[in-house]
Amino acid sequence: METIQSDNYPIFFENSIQELLKFVKDGNYSRIFILTDENTAEHCLHLVKPHFEGMDNFDLLEIPAGEENKNIDFCIGVWKLLIDFEADRKSLLINLGGGVITDMGGFAASTYKRGIDFVHVPTTLLSQVDASVGGKTGIDLDSVKNIVGTFTQPKAVFIAVDFLKTLSKREILSGTAEMLKHGLIIDAAYWNALKNSDLSIPDAQLIYRSVEIKNEVVIEDPTEKGVRKSLNFGHTIGHAVETNSLMKDKKPLTHGEAIAIGMICESYLSNKSAGLSNNELDEIVKVFGNLYPKYTLKKEDYPELLAIMLKDKKNINGKINCTLLTSIGQYKLDNFFTNNELCESLDYYASL
Amino acid sequence: METIQSDNYPIFFENSIQELLKFVKDGNYSRIFILTDENTAEHCLHLVKPHFEGMDNFDLLEIPAGEENKNIDFCIGVWKLLIDFEADRKSLLINLGGGVITDMGGFAASTYKRGIDFVHVPTTLLSQVDASVGGKTGIDLDSVKNIVGTFTQPKAVFIAVDFLKTLSKREILSGTAEMLKHGLIIDAAYWNALKNSDLSIPDAQLIYRSVEIKNEVVIEDPTEKGVRKSLNFGHTIGHAVETNSLMKDKKPLTHGEAIAIGMICESYLSNKSAGLSNNELDEIVKVFGNLYPKYTLKKEDYPELLAIMLKDKKNINGKINCTLLTSIGQYKLDNFFTNNELCESLDYYASL
Ligand SMILES: NC(=O)c1ccc[n+]([C@@H]2O[C@H](COP(=O)([O-])OP(=O)(O)OC[C@H]3O[C@@H](n4cnc5c(N)ncnc54)[C@H](O)[C@@H]3O)[C@@H](O)[C@H]2O)c1
Ligand SMILES: NC(=O)c1ccc[n+]([C@@H]2O[C@H](COP(=O)([O-])OP(=O)(O)OC[C@H]3O[C@@H](n4cnc5c(N)ncnc54)[C@H](O)[C@@H]3O)[C@@H](O)[C@H]2O)c1
Ligand SMILES: [Zn+2]
Ligand SMILES: [Zn+2]
Repeated sequence: METIQSDNYPIFFENSIQELLKFVKDGNYSRIFILTDENTAEHCLHLVKPHFEGMDNFDLLEIPAGEENKNIDFCIGVWKLLIDFEADRKSLLINLGGGVITDMGGFAASTYKRGIDFVHVPTTLLSQVDASVGGKTGIDLDSVKNIVGTFTQPKAVFIAVDFLKTLSKREILSGTAEMLKHGLIIDAAYWNALKNSDLSIPDAQLIYRSVEIKNEVVIEDPTEKGVRKSLNFGHTIGHAVETNSLMKDKKPLTHGEAIAIGMICESYLSNKSAGLSNNELDEIVKVFGNLYPKYTLKKEDYPELLAIMLKDKKNINGKINCTLLTSIGQYKLDNFFTNNELCESLDYYASL
Repeated sequence: METIQSDNYPIFFENSIQELLKFVKDGNYSRIFILTDENTAEHCLHLVKPHFEGMDNFDLLEIPAGEENKNIDFCIGVWKLLIDFEADRKSLLINLGGGVITDMGGFAASTYKRGIDFVHVPTTLLSQVDASVGGKTGIDLDSVKNIVGTFTQPKAVFIAVDFLKTLSKREILSGTAEMLKHGLIIDAAYWNALKNSDLSIPDAQLIYRSVEIKNEVVIEDPTEKGVRKSLNFGHTIGHAVETNSLMKDKKPLTHGEAIAIGMICESYLSNKSAGLSNNELDEIVKVFGNLYPKYTLKKEDYPELLAIMLKDKKNINGKINCTLLTSIGQYKLDNFFTNNELCESLDYYASL
């Protein structure tokens, strides 16, 4: 699988750990840091660390796992560690983990001393097909997701399917949701291929195609002025469901589970007002229904969900913005909805 | 005085408040915020606010005055206010204040929703001739100055000498130090003009020339890879003295006072090792000596000062980097010194 060229940085798929080592050596960095969470320290670090142990300018940074720690407090913790380790501007941060690590590590690096180099080694399916590509960094604040961040490209991304072996089925499926999204918005053939394969076992070729799609979109529109909003399909409602679940549920939804709900709701809206056919809506509902457990959306949470949607970054002038499908493989930007219509789509999901 | 063109944004000198209003109207922003500190709310806001009061999409944000508040806590406060006011991506932040407001407001805006527009209305001499131009944003952390920040250009800068009327003499002189620095590193004629004028009354033409110099340097090197380091003259040692004073003194040094000490020390090093003549060293010492009160550098603080210098952003591989003068009006980048040499220069200042 050929290296994908993104916005001035390469995305490696073959011999990725070797490529990482080569990158580090060629980069002539003064200090090298690997950021992990507790899980990637346990399951992923051993594939990388032995190669670094000889170096005397190498240190480990670790944060606790989970979206609830993608916050400013742990970001301050990372900045302070970099200060304590006397990291200078020629330092490199290697983000080894899922989207929480790549988002927060990217943000910490892009702002430490006004920006040091960072690379991503994504270890979840979600971060491989989505979070590690496109230059969005960020943290949550006051449980508003990704409200603080930058657009900063990594210097390289190193994708190795090997990491996924220790990932739970639930986390695999979290990433699958984004792959399905890529098919739905841009590539009907890819959607069909995904639909007909065993999605509990990640397939390198399918991952590769997903990264290709994401990369094409973000290269065309790095700062989300236009086409990049296509990637937002399912996310207006999905993010709200996710945020609400994070605040209230003992065992919160994964990003993918939430987005899957969002895609069903927004497919409903697509069917109502953007031309998605009844058959296509049924097909989408069936595919997601087979993959993800049913979640109970409580009527009493609707006001909260709408309030969260109102805070979405893509809104303008207080109007709630959704990306919809005109058919499978074809998106339509900037559809605005009233609270009533949005609630109707939540009711639709609840009724399934 | 003609508008200066910087890196894709204008710096206005004439009718600046009118220009600000025009900018805001043409910009078609969904929400407009003015960030002040308590002093600029009292002394500066009245020149601007009446023009905005008619608008229903306008709000005020205020933080306490002083460098000790240029920290992550108040930055979080600004982010949270923006969330509470439901600021979207088409919002504008107007930073009305000194360098603390322009640095922190710039950072908050450049990271809120991954970046909203901001403009500077600098109200101190220092922020007019220095902080508001060049795209550096930042906050302090763990009393390491500007350790977290971004390189993000404002959309425009509006300079009005009128604001300076309410500024104390001490704050005026804080800005004067940077103007003198601009002369010392690049323009001997400008240095002479400054030296021979009454520096307690800010002069619009002299301010203009200072902005021109700063602008030329930062345009050539926006992210401080080369020539921009010339602006660092006096700052390696000056920053350390300032940080130490902030931590320990009841009435800390201003930025300019600290930088003036740094420029004397680094002129001493320039004389020792970069070719600055004895006469020039004496002249520099005399000019600064006439303008700034003598400050007591304690021997027992030297280790702390060196430790702070070691954390400076411009260092590479643990070596302390100074910009020096080969003569008045001419700089030399990337001079590295041992702890002993740096202490010697502190001794020199103490001996004056
Ligand atoms: N920047 C972007 O463009 C972008 C895009 C999509 C999502 N995101 C962000 O990504 C985050 C979600 O990503 P995620 O699902 O990877 O979350 P995550 O980083 O929390 O990873 C999920 C869980 O898997 C664990 N884990 C990671 N790798 C493992 C491995 N190889 N083996 C075993 N366990 C492993 C983690 O410790 C965590 O508990 C969200 O914060 C979301 O906002 C960002
Ligand atoms: N970004 C850059 O390139 C850059 C360059 C130089 C300095 N800086 C930063 O700028 C800061 C120092 O700037 P500063 O000296 O303007 O600090 P400041 O913002 O703290 O202002 C100094 C004092 O003057 C008050 N004040 C401001 N305008 C006034 C007015 N018109 N009338 C009366 N009082 C007024 C303020 O409230 C404050 O008490 C430092 O944090 C420094 O790091 C940044
Ligand atoms: Zn997503
Ligand atoms: Zn300065």
